[in-house]
Amino acid sequence: MKARIHITLKPGVLDPQGKAIEGALKGLGFDDAANVRQGKVIEMTLSETDENAARARVEEMCKKLLANPVMENYAIELSV
Amino acid sequence: MKARIHITLKPGVLDPQGKAIEGALKGLGFDDAANVRQGKVIEMTLSETDENAARARVEEMCKKLLANPVMENYAIELSV
Repeated sequence: MKARIHITLKPGVLDPQGKAIEGALKGLGFDDAANVRQGKVIEMTLSETDENAARARVEEMCKKLLANPVMENYAIELSV
Repeated sequence: MKARIHITLKPGVLDPQGKAIEGALKGLGFDDAANVRQGKVIEMTLSETDENAARARVEEMCKKLLANPVMENYAIELSV
């Protein structure tokens, strides 16, 4: 089973990396881009084949290591 | 219009960050995670309302700034 985890900063948290990208885009003439935010995406293969078990497993990984629940949100997508 | 861009390393490219995450997961007892890869996700709001025009615009941003087409793949998702 394949898992894809999106980790993004919570809405209120300042995102300097996103701001830097936005500034660079504007410098290149892309004035129409606003509210640029950067996050992470982590992809992995799991040996688990049951979807619910796999989701619980990935959720545990997020809580223990992958995401910082104080500042970040995460979303898990599973596919076969 | 909102755009979400996934930027991932091409399959053959070594991903030390992904390897580090995989090692840390194994250290925590998550032995079932394999082929861990880390990428970036960039979210932005565009003033463009036409989907095709917005896609072309974001594609141009990816080629000029956001992704390195030699080493990275990118995928664009648009939503209203």
